[in-house]
Amino acid sequence: MSKTVAGNFFEDFSLGQKIVHATPRTLGDGDRALYAALYGSRFAVQSSDEFARALGYPASPMDDLLVFNSVFGKTVPDISLNAIANLGYAECVFSTPVYAGDTLSARSEVIGLKENSNGKTGTVYVRSKGINQRGEEVVSFVRWVMVRKRREKSAGPAAVVPLLQKFANIKARVPRLNMAKWDFAQSGSPHRFDDYAVGEKIDHLDGMTVEEAEQQLATRLYQNTARVHFNQFAEQGGKFGRRLIYGGHVISLARALSFNGLANAFHIAGINGGRHVAPLFAGGTVFAWSEIIDKATYGDVGALRIVTRATRDLPCAEFPAEDATAEKPGVILELDYWALIPR
Amino acid sequence: MSKTVAGNFFEDFSLGQKIVHATPRTLGDGDRALYAALYGSRFAVQSSDEFARALGYPASPMDDLLVFNSVFGKTVPDISLNAIANLGYAECVFSTPVYAGDTLSARSEVIGLKENSNGKTGTVYVRSKGINQRGEEVVSFVRWVMVRKRREKSAGPAAVVPLLQKFANIKARVPRLNMAKWDFAQSGSPHRFDDYAVGEKIDHLDGMTVEEAEQQLATRLYQNTARVHFNQFAEQGGKFGRRLIYGGHVISLARALSFNGLANAFHIAGINGGRHVAPLFAGGTVFAWSEIIDKATYGDVGALRIVTRATRDLPCAEFPAEDATAEKPGVILELDYWALIPR
Amino acid sequence: MSKTVAGNFFEDFSLGQKIVHATPRTLGDGDRALYAALYGSRFAVQSSDEFARALGYPASPMDDLLVFNSVFGKTVPDISLNAIANLGYAECVFSTPVYAGDTLSARSEVIGLKENSNGKTGTVYVRSKGINQRGEEVVSFVRWVMVRKRREKSAGPAAVVPLLQKFANIKARVPRLNMAKWDFAQSGSPHRFDDYAVGEKIDHLDGMTVEEAEQQLATRLYQNTARVHFNQFAEQGGKFGRRLIYGGHVISLARALSFNGLANAFHIAGINGGRHVAPLFAGGTVFAWSEIIDKATYGDVGALRIVTRATRDLPCAEFPAEDATAEKPGVILELDYWALIPR
Repeated sequence: MSKTVAGNFFEDFSLGQKIVHATPRTLGDGDRALYAALYGSRFAVQSSDEFARALGYPASPMDDLLVFNSVFGKTVPDISLNAIANLGYAECVFSTPVYAGDTLSARSEVIGLKENSNGKTGTVYVRSKGINQRGEEVVSFVRWVMVRKRREKSAGPAAVVPLLQKFANIKARVPRLNMAKWDFAQSGSPHRFDDYAVGEKIDHLDGMTVEEAEQQLATRLYQNTARVHFNQFAEQGGKFGRRLIYGGHVISLARALSFNGLANAFHIAGINGGRHVAPLFAGGTVFAWSEIIDKATYGDVGALRIVTRATRDLPCAEFPAEDATAEKPGVILELDYWALIPR
Repeated sequence: MSKTVAGNFFEDFSLGQKIVHATPRTLGDGDRALYAALYGSRFAVQSSDEFARALGYPASPMDDLLVFNSVFGKTVPDISLNAIANLGYAECVFSTPVYAGDTLSARSEVIGLKENSNGKTGTVYVRSKGINQRGEEVVSFVRWVMVRKRREKSAGPAAVVPLLQKFANIKARVPRLNMAKWDFAQSGSPHRFDDYAVGEKIDHLDGMTVEEAEQQLATRLYQNTARVHFNQFAEQGGKFGRRLIYGGHVISLARALSFNGLANAFHIAGINGGRHVAPLFAGGTVFAWSEIIDKATYGDVGALRIVTRATRDLPCAEFPAEDATAEKPGVILELDYWALIPR
Repeated sequence: MSKTVAGNFFEDFSLGQKIVHATPRTLGDGDRALYAALYGSRFAVQSSDEFARALGYPASPMDDLLVFNSVFGKTVPDISLNAIANLGYAECVFSTPVYAGDTLSARSEVIGLKENSNGKTGTVYVRSKGINQRGEEVVSFVRWVMVRKRREKSAGPAAVVPLLQKFANIKARVPRLNMAKWDFAQSGSPHRFDDYAVGEKIDHLDGMTVEEAEQQLATRLYQNTARVHFNQFAEQGGKFGRRLIYGGHVISLARALSFNGLANAFHIAGINGGRHVAPLFAGGTVFAWSEIIDKATYGDVGALRIVTRATRDLPCAEFPAEDATAEKPGVILELDYWALIPR
């Protein structure tokens, strides 16, 4: 058995297969600071212990997407090292908040397999879970990736495509908080649940140019080992001639940009779906806009269903929806999620 | 009311106006490490818990300029998002040390307004305060910025220019420390208060080249949202064609460089004045030199009044004082401050 | 006496000279996170408090090379600011684990001096020790550097070259751990001591491109002040025309890359020798391969003696051993060390 991991190919996966991922990692105050420095996120609950404690959190929880990216990263060596594309996400629910000192590990189950008609690739569906040191689930999500086959002619398994919910069921996971203690001056906006209408579109105005060093620092912080993000020597002969910015970096940037317009949308409770529509490279500037597509209430906390689109080199005053290509500015990410907000 | 913040214009400010800034932030061990990585600061009090405790601090306090930049950053969305220039600082006093776990918030009061004769801009003077979770002031400073008017023809307020002190009154804020415990071997220099003479000039020798990723990480860490630092897409059509390095990044670099010559000047007690004389861009190398312009004693601790000048692409062996321009090497920062030092 | 440190020249060193280095520094959770972000290391013991505690550590210890680089950095202003080359390392032993909150200081003794025949330079041998706040040695190593003479004609001291051991004596420093608790699923590999044979070669597959901002952040984190790493203004007129990546950055990258093939080699117990064979510059991609050259056992823990070679812009499938030059791809680092691994 080889001592090195060159990644699994389509033939290496089987339906129902369970995978324990390496490496467990303790998140701490340093991760919080790095996350702040990487994205400039300003949501008060994740920024201030005092703000979080007033609501009933024991301390400021880690950013939801830091948790997501950390768990995602662990799955890469087993799931997507030979992936051609991250096709989508679904049924992502953030269960238990993560605090400094918590140790996260990850495991996955293969829930679908479908060979592509070209005979060269197949789609692998996995449900991945992040677990804390007490065995509690902190996040669970489904993703599907297009993976190379080891041999073009090899016989594939019977196609099984999982039936996925259209949106994440967050109901059981909405935290009970003392929302009366919300401080709208400190949080940066007076706008609450009732101020947002279904169909409303918000241009988040700001743009953020991505540097290679930033995405490498972020992606390594998540212990994500996909070579497309790190290895210019290999990528210079590849499709794009350069390193690809990790998709989770774009998600985190888009969420941070969305503060300007959604400052009180303090917690991503779940991700209903997501697509990385087009690639991002260093030097590109990310903008974002959001549309409110649904609303729900859970006691004294509201939930906005939001679709945030991130663009490359295209300001969002006109709410662009056309996909970017490697050359043409446009949408690079569509993310459909539930965010909690004071009523 | 728009949900997004596009920044205040000159007409939006009124004399005596009080502003509570978002977002409170808990500083921790991660901020300390990032600050070290960003500037390479080596002052022993801010580097070592043991060194600090020997003097009577409960732990190593956060770097003064990390505190300054964090509080400054919070004021940006309300004060200077539409600023054309940060014109100056005055009356900056560091009051209470900040330790890991402290949560900082910020508020400001408009103390002066003066329309410029061109009718297009005005100067806004604000006094900003950083407050910890116990409501104690950690830093207070005045700054004035040139802000665009919303409409050129709009009538401005009566001009009020605050009377500012020529230097910061640090007397009540000098910490009581057991200076006999100062370890001159560990601190990196044998030079103490009596070794410095008024009029003495020190070339700090070292140079530090600034990378775009570094200034973006720093400026986001401070939750500073000014687009000139982040948005290459917008800046490529702007005055300089590129992102501007955040001025506070230059201040922190100059202070870190000043260790070579001022290793025992362990605490910035106050900033008497400061000017960002010329812009810095990524790729520029920052040098610095200092002049001792006054001295004072407070019990067994001395204070040096220092003017540190940072230059771009110009070594400081000859103590250059000529301002840089966007193209020409020269001085980019003048900072006049009180630094405490063992007697 | 000049207030600034311009570095020692060959004539400034004397045999038996003892040097206390500035600046003590408290390592914390932020250093751990930054180290992860800089290198993407995935060794479970240094990543997870839970994994480390199961083995008997009180918490996850700091990465050995973070400790090494932090102690090394402190020695630079006194030892190698005027060094032309870091010639080698020997007798490096990691003694006491370092945890978040520990404060490290450093001291050195000059153990050898030898003028070079050109009359312009000499080799200085120093034994440096890192010490924690309880006075315990955390790491000890010998290094030798080629240092400029102040004056070409000055008379040098009698040549004394220390007799160095061919390998580090780690025996007394192997930690007593409950190795039965090792979790091979979480650690990322089933391979243990017996699975590795002397003579075995492992290509670590992955490549990592280095950015200027990354090496500057790292090198400043270690408080290493050598100008070749930071000052493009000075280096543009130097031998290579650009900044040199700090050698310790390459060591840390090579170690992190070696996870893919040596995932259970959890602790560098000692470094027998090391050579920076050729320079690395920003934009270069680092690959690595290892050879097992010896094996030993200490109770229920095994030790592999490994030579890891890092290359620049050269994948390691064919285990290249030829040195790179500034222009030609090839080996840039050879590191001979003992790594502990479960039996």
